[in-house]
Amino acid sequence: MVMPGGIDVHTRFQMPDRGMTAADDFYQGTRAALAGGTTMIIDHVVAEPGVGLIAAFNQWREWADSKSCCDYSLHVDITEWHKGIQEEMETLVKDHGVNSFLVYLAYKDVFQLTDSQIYEVFSGIRDLGAIAQVHAENGDIIAEEQRRILELGITGPEGHVLSRPEEVEAEAVNRSVTVANQTNCPLYITKVMSKSASDVIAQARKKGTVVYGEPITASVGTDGSHYWSKNWGKAAAYVTSPPLSPDPTTPDYLNSLLSCGDLQVVGSGHCTFNTAQRAVGKDDFTLIPEGTNGAEERMSIIWDKCVVTGKMDENQFVAVTSTNAAKIFNLYPRKGRIAVGSDADLVLWDPDVTKIISAKSHNSAVEYNIFEGMEVRGAPLVVISQGKIVLEEGTLHTTEGSGRYVPRKPFPDYVYKRIKARSRLAELRGVPRGLYDGPVCEVSVTPKAVTPASSAKTSPAKQASQPVRNLHQSGFSLSGAQVDDNIPRRNTQRIVAPPGGRANITSLG
Amino acid sequence: MVMPGGIDVHTRFQMPDRGMTAADDFYQGTRAALAGGTTMIIDHVVAEPGVGLIAAFNQWREWADSKSCCDYSLHVDITEWHKGIQEEMETLVKDHGVNSFLVYLAYKDVFQLTDSQIYEVFSGIRDLGAIAQVHAENGDIIAEEQRRILELGITGPEGHVLSRPEEVEAEAVNRSVTVANQTNCPLYITKVMSKSASDVIAQARKKGTVVYGEPITASVGTDGSHYWSKNWGKAAAYVTSPPLSPDPTTPDYLNSLLSCGDLQVVGSGHCTFNTAQRAVGKDDFTLIPEGTNGAEERMSIIWDKCVVTGKMDENQFVAVTSTNAAKIFNLYPRKGRIAVGSDADLVLWDPDVTKIISAKSHNSAVEYNIFEGMEVRGAPLVVISQGKIVLEEGTLHTTEGSGRYVPRKPFPDYVYKRIKARSRLAELRGVPRGLYDGPVCEVSVTPKAVTPASSAKTSPAKQASQPVRNLHQSGFSLSGAQVDDNIPRRNTQRIVAPPGGRANITSLG
Amino acid sequence: MVMPGGIDVHTRFQMPDRGMTAADDFYQGTRAALAGGTTMIIDHVVAEPGVGLIAAFNQWREWADSKSCCDYSLHVDITEWHKGIQEEMETLVKDHGVNSFLVYLAYKDVFQLTDSQIYEVFSGIRDLGAIAQVHAENGDIIAEEQRRILELGITGPEGHVLSRPEEVEAEAVNRSVTVANQTNCPLYITKVMSKSASDVIAQARKKGTVVYGEPITASVGTDGSHYWSKNWGKAAAYVTSPPLSPDPTTPDYLNSLLSCGDLQVVGSGHCTFNTAQRAVGKDDFTLIPEGTNGAEERMSIIWDKCVVTGKMDENQFVAVTSTNAAKIFNLYPRKGRIAVGSDADLVLWDPDVTKIISAKSHNSAVEYNIFEGMEVRGAPLVVISQGKIVLEEGTLHTTEGSGRYVPRKPFPDYVYKRIKARSRLAELRGVPRGLYDGPVCEVSVTPKAVTPASSAKTSPAKQASQPVRNLHQSGFSLSGAQVDDNIPRRNTQRIVAPPGGRANITSLG
Amino acid sequence: MVMPGGIDVHTRFQMPDRGMTAADDFYQGTRAALAGGTTMIIDHVVAEPGVGLIAAFNQWREWADSKSCCDYSLHVDITEWHKGIQEEMETLVKDHGVNSFLVYLAYKDVFQLTDSQIYEVFSGIRDLGAIAQVHAENGDIIAEEQRRILELGITGPEGHVLSRPEEVEAEAVNRSVTVANQTNCPLYITKVMSKSASDVIAQARKKGTVVYGEPITASVGTDGSHYWSKNWGKAAAYVTSPPLSPDPTTPDYLNSLLSCGDLQVVGSGHCTFNTAQRAVGKDDFTLIPEGTNGAEERMSIIWDKCVVTGKMDENQFVAVTSTNAAKIFNLYPRKGRIAVGSDADLVLWDPDVTKIISAKSHNSAVEYNIFEGMEVRGAPLVVISQGKIVLEEGTLHTTEGSGRYVPRKPFPDYVYKRIKARSRLAELRGVPRGLYDGPVCEVSVTPKAVTPASSAKTSPAKQASQPVRNLHQSGFSLSGAQVDDNIPRRNTQRIVAPPGGRANITSLG
Repeated sequence: MVMPGGIDVHTRFQMPDRGMTAADDFYQGTRAALAGGTTMIIDHVVAEPGVGLIAAFNQWREWADSKSCCDYSLHVDITEWHKGIQEEMETLVKDHGVNSFLVYLAYKDVFQLTDSQIYEVFSGIRDLGAIAQVHAENGDIIAEEQRRILELGITGPEGHVLSRPEEVEAEAVNRSVTVANQTNCPLYITKVMSKSASDVIAQARKKGTVVYGEPITASVGTDGSHYWSKNWGKAAAYVTSPPLSPDPTTPDYLNSLLSCGDLQVVGSGHCTFNTAQRAVGKDDFTLIPEGTNGAEERMSIIWDKCVVTGKMDENQFVAVTSTNAAKIFNLYPRKGRIAVGSDADLVLWDPDVTKIISAKSHNSAVEYNIFEGMEVRGAPLVVISQGKIVLEEGTLHTTEGSGRYVPRKPFPDYVYKRIKARSRLAELRGVPRGLYDGPVCEVSVTPKAVTPASSAKTSPAKQASQPVRNLHQSGFSLSGAQVDDNIPRRNTQRIVAPPGGRANITSLG
Repeated sequence: MVMPGGIDVHTRFQMPDRGMTAADDFYQGTRAALAGGTTMIIDHVVAEPGVGLIAAFNQWREWADSKSCCDYSLHVDITEWHKGIQEEMETLVKDHGVNSFLVYLAYKDVFQLTDSQIYEVFSGIRDLGAIAQVHAENGDIIAEEQRRILELGITGPEGHVLSRPEEVEAEAVNRSVTVANQTNCPLYITKVMSKSASDVIAQARKKGTVVYGEPITASVGTDGSHYWSKNWGKAAAYVTSPPLSPDPTTPDYLNSLLSCGDLQVVGSGHCTFNTAQRAVGKDDFTLIPEGTNGAEERMSIIWDKCVVTGKMDENQFVAVTSTNAAKIFNLYPRKGRIAVGSDADLVLWDPDVTKIISAKSHNSAVEYNIFEGMEVRGAPLVVISQGKIVLEEGTLHTTEGSGRYVPRKPFPDYVYKRIKARSRLAELRGVPRGLYDGPVCEVSVTPKAVTPASSAKTSPAKQASQPVRNLHQSGFSLSGAQVDDNIPRRNTQRIVAPPGGRANITSLG
Repeated sequence: MVMPGGIDVHTRFQMPDRGMTAADDFYQGTRAALAGGTTMIIDHVVAEPGVGLIAAFNQWREWADSKSCCDYSLHVDITEWHKGIQEEMETLVKDHGVNSFLVYLAYKDVFQLTDSQIYEVFSGIRDLGAIAQVHAENGDIIAEEQRRILELGITGPEGHVLSRPEEVEAEAVNRSVTVANQTNCPLYITKVMSKSASDVIAQARKKGTVVYGEPITASVGTDGSHYWSKNWGKAAAYVTSPPLSPDPTTPDYLNSLLSCGDLQVVGSGHCTFNTAQRAVGKDDFTLIPEGTNGAEERMSIIWDKCVVTGKMDENQFVAVTSTNAAKIFNLYPRKGRIAVGSDADLVLWDPDVTKIISAKSHNSAVEYNIFEGMEVRGAPLVVISQGKIVLEEGTLHTTEGSGRYVPRKPFPDYVYKRIKARSRLAELRGVPRGLYDGPVCEVSVTPKAVTPASSAKTSPAKQASQPVRNLHQSGFSLSGAQVDDNIPRRNTQRIVAPPGGRANITSLG
Repeated sequence: MVMPGGIDVHTRFQMPDRGMTAADDFYQGTRAALAGGTTMIIDHVVAEPGVGLIAAFNQWREWADSKSCCDYSLHVDITEWHKGIQEEMETLVKDHGVNSFLVYLAYKDVFQLTDSQIYEVFSGIRDLGAIAQVHAENGDIIAEEQRRILELGITGPEGHVLSRPEEVEAEAVNRSVTVANQTNCPLYITKVMSKSASDVIAQARKKGTVVYGEPITASVGTDGSHYWSKNWGKAAAYVTSPPLSPDPTTPDYLNSLLSCGDLQVVGSGHCTFNTAQRAVGKDDFTLIPEGTNGAEERMSIIWDKCVVTGKMDENQFVAVTSTNAAKIFNLYPRKGRIAVGSDADLVLWDPDVTKIISAKSHNSAVEYNIFEGMEVRGAPLVVISQGKIVLEEGTLHTTEGSGRYVPRKPFPDYVYKRIKARSRLAELRGVPRGLYDGPVCEVSVTPKAVTPASSAKTSPAKQASQPVRNLHQSGFSLSGAQVDDNIPRRNTQRIVAPPGGRANITSLG
């Protein structure tokens, strides 16, 4: 069975954390990816405090160019918000082939932005034709819970999940969706880890929101019961945020939603730290470096859990492991497709082979594997990257640094055709009224609630990108057509505001 | 048909706003309430900037004692957060009979608190045995939308609802519920105005959250299409927050949820301003003083929309207009019940009389009525307050200042029996592990995400009030029973954390 | 803590089955009930083939009068449908104090009625002012599955649950609700055993259907994993229909819905057979006599699972174990309430005592207990029936035959006030049109779909009991008000059919 | 914009009804289809009473071969159930290229099958590798309602929709889904007309059911308010079953679900009768011949309502109007795709042209158009069928009888890969137990509930097609893995029955 190579849109190889570096760098990470059938990755750039976005981007390019064994691209994370950031984002889109930016609703006092800032970042992203990615957890609640749990004397990895209950993830997803709807900005939720978070995404899509959800290898393959392991090293190995859900029925649920199209892309969230690195948080779970493995296991686990069980067919498998990502992030049809003119990134997939996952045999540099002992059916037989066979008979033939940076243009059709149509429909109009000429009270004090324009807003909103509201709500449309039956329904009348005419019918008296 | 007098738990009589005062003071407001069958009200105290909570409370007491024609009590609104506020709250509960406090998620830069502050206020409220009330709208989004809409040149009342779409209300309700669950604090959502907001409440109740929802007369009786009236004065009369929903099916939906118990209390949200006062915002909808009438119409509208239609029976009518409120706010059985020992606040209800609501005939001082022309069936025939007939044959016999302040004790059984049971179950325990004695990486920089204790937290959390998480989630309980089948299930084992024992089964190495 | 005695509205004591009789007769059964705090039961009369309803009713009266130790009443099951049945139902209501009848959607070729018959039975029940009870499972599917599973060689008790999957219960609940809505007949679902069935009920209530749901002791206290026990006798002991769900999270879910009011009454479904009786089906699970114990454990299990966990307070406990049942079946306020004039059926409840359930100590005559080994908190300390202490210091003082038959009047207010209001609203009207005077095609054959009047329909539908449709649907009401804005909205216009006037606006030609 | 020609999988051209014939025959019908961009249709064969399936099929072939202007295929409707039908179905699949059969849950005493029969038909369809189509309405309830409404004196077209409320459609969809899940048969719901019916489908898909939903041009383009038109001819023109929903928000809702993938295919349901033909039912709405136009308008309406509004992009447009249908009914890649080797059925689509739909200008032979006056954006510029231009500059160049019959093979991959995977997983196993050797009661009468094998069942179920149950249920899987943690989880252990081992833990005695 031939299929396009997998695309893993969520890796954090070589990720720096307080002077440490993730166990898998771009060499080891991309080798693991290739071994699992993935021929392209998109990594996240996270600027350290005081470092500009472009400088950080260049640093990541340097690392990846020298080590990556497969093609790659880069998302850029936004960890603070001011006018300079906005300008750098514009440069990244226009000159560096970046079309996706991640914001954080968690990591209070570090990365977390306020709702006002999120609104402005999303507005900017929409103007640039990019995709807004969100790490969705409520950082305020988490900070309070962390303190409370540490005060109770709970310091082990179980504290990680106790301080980040599922509701806190679902809340943040819901909030992101609300802001994305208001700003008419396409939204991509990274790391969907819980049933309730995935439900919010499914519900929003049904209402017409342009939103995509990305579960990761860990959330579709295992669960959070391991945080209670008596083996500290094992328990710590599962620490990632949002955490794995302790509800053991979560993976099956997420796999069902991937299968029916309510979730669209499966990433790996691959970011590995060795036990000695994790042990920085041995006395305080908030200090444990976060992330799990998954680049190598991603495709086999989806095959095993979704195709073998009849949840999805092969086409849907290719969609969630490769094509959907290519379309969303504007790599299609160069990537994610088998066709003349597309890159020669291919996989020969063996649907019947079975394999037991183990740290002893995996290609990652990290010393444990969160799927240890899991038997999966389905694996790549041959992997071809850039036209060369890189996996054959179980052996990798990779070349360090052979991976190319793949720039991505803004305004991907797959995403922005709908955004543009929504913009056209969303023009707001006021009600034409005569001047109010009655008496007016005197006000003795300063007006309430005058919100000053925020710092980063440099220009008036561009007309082509009007935010949209309520394009679909169950049971109701703000169309004027239902107000006045005497006017024949016409397409051009789809306006957001009910025509003022109605009011005349029942004048106040 | 005899029933206990109505209790209207949401009024803002005599409300100050930028030097103006609401059209109905405690005299006119309570007369209107009595005329509609309501014999007790609870008003909201809002301290102006720089005025302490207790000083403001005393001001309201003074106003109400001198003018109120029926018994009353007072909620206190929390519009900023620091240690002094916390101390004043404690005094209000212990010495002044206050057991409910309202916080705002909207009104950015004026009243709005952050999620961290909400978490701390809720924790404090729970320790005091009070009820957390929430004005639920996302103020950050609203501020951005207001600016955007004004920039588009939309200045009329339609801008009010365009800048406050339904999603923004539902988002804030969802966030409040999340924080209330984490802190195990009872929650009361004031002014439920939309279908989606009410759905969030219904869903949360199904999962076991101790949350109550209060639609108001306006949201169960009319809709937001009027904001598009060409008559500015009329359109402005409907301005309230959250706004009335433009979806005309909203009232029916809210009435259904009141009827099946998913919503519990109907308030009036009575806060009236005359057109000349509203006209302060004639050129900028953000400056229009907010609030609608409803104290007099509350009970008749519920009767007409819910009882006449077969949605609810008379008992449920009494529950949502009187008894539920009495139980939640600890007035029961003194109020909300007909029994020996209860106050003689009674209504003789005529289920068959029909009446057309009009500003010409209403008892409110305000010059318009948002229900103008609506015909309703059901009205009080005789109203008895404190044992005296105050309404008879359509005539009011009220005495200014005869209303008594009714203090309310904390820890109402109706609310806190469940809260206490949840606290007992929610004890968190860490996993007993030996010390980790393997290698530990060196970290070069400062630890991430250390959140300092917030200022207002004065004492360690009291043991009796442990927050609760996830007591019920569909399909999963964090009970240990499902982890280890070898231990017989026993009641006393209901612990939150899965026992570590499980981890031994699949040890890492 | 004093509370009204429990009411168990679902027992099948002394139940005949193919010549056998259930292990607990009215003496042993009511003793078990009293021991658990229940002071009244309602048993089901099931006429054997060829025996009339009244004859069967009299048989049950005789059995119960001579043996019952507590007050009792009787539901009558309808297992076939013809004119004679309809007349007997009328007699039972008018002369014998019966106001509830059960129909079966399962037990094909034995008890099962068709949808047409259900429609007619429900119409008749509504005319009589009674309550329609439904055993909800799709008997057609079950019969097919039973045959298939036996053909596969599966003969043990696990075949029982495999042939009756949860969906088959939910389907039948949904169908019953649909028919009840069409006929405007109040509906009571007996034995709610699964999450999906309970969801259907909750959803229907939200839409305004007059429907009640009754989980039983077994479904709130244990689950269906036991059908896979290697001990045949144990596995067979759990056989009941609908079966216990193998999903172990079911009891917690049902308890949450009981707590928030989505389910209303907990019955015991007590119907016990000894292992030797069960063994009739030792080679064919379809022959195992059905039913589980639960009369004695009912109240303690609800206390333990719902009150101790903070899901409900004491008042809700009394509601679901006693008062709601009394109101629905028109026993209130004689039963289900502590008041002057009510019967002296009381319980002194000890909330703190703990107890381990076991066949060794229970009062039932059956040799096993499906809750064997379960530790529960909360039990009756003293039970008073008809003013006499019947349980004290753990000892029963019962008198065989002292229980009185309690007749129940039709048209219970709690149920029928809403039904009547819905009837008034539901008048259907045709559109007034002139005669169609255009050309008409000739038809060569017999008209399609002429459905003959069914046999049992003896008289035209009475005007006072018009069926109701669509009184509430999300997002839409068939009210004419939204069609024509020129006519002011008036209460009296709430008609079901949009006025024809609309059509003129967009005439066809 | 080039795209594959549309495929309309639901037409009833030349449909006989009581001696009349539908206004559009295969010539006029396919011309209308081509004019709208559709280059292939699938029509329904309905055998008249006494005519065999194959004879009817040949009749339809004859009609279509001589008149059709575009390629076509045929579904066959099953209107009774016995062994002969089963054999004819097999022949149709094996020798005549039919892979889809429709059953009716409505039309009592005419076409309607019982649930038992549906179960058997679905089992047979699954064995043949075909698709089960369902006309989903509860015929029993409808028959009762029709009689009741006629008795009330309502005889006009409004009686049609009053006797077929939305719930009756949703109920039947839910029942079909339940049977399809039990039999592991792929299900295709024709004519999805209401929000609640579409919700049932969406929910079932989320749980993993292999089910597809087909709204039709009428349900996505207009609503049921027209049944109340005072113009009888107009009102009658909308008569179709299930009826159009009077809820005006229905089309928007269905379009949203088509867009997010919860519904998959839009058909036309084209079946037209002239007013004189409709007038057969001028005094009795049950006699009005049913069906609406839509073949010509189908694609333009979807473009206008879904693409122009930003609900879907062009790719999703092609999917719902062509490709999905081709895949489900095994026409792909010959149809539904532009590629070398595919048929040259193409459309050049003009996204910007606007057009007003009218009976004056449409290509159908019928004298009215239910979309009269609707302005739509988007229409075909050029249509190519079998490599020939058939529409150009608004002019049709069609050739009567040029359409070819396209046979369709069974077991389409798109549908059956999942069905087969589900079959493999669904093997049921009994619990291995020793013989029960205890005492056994004697039974005096005949065993209960022995259901005889139904007549049409000719052979034992084939092993390759085991029905499936509960492959996904929220929060629970019947996998044994969660019962016994001591056995490592392995893929091959996914069995349906929990291993009996568990039972030993808590043995009964």
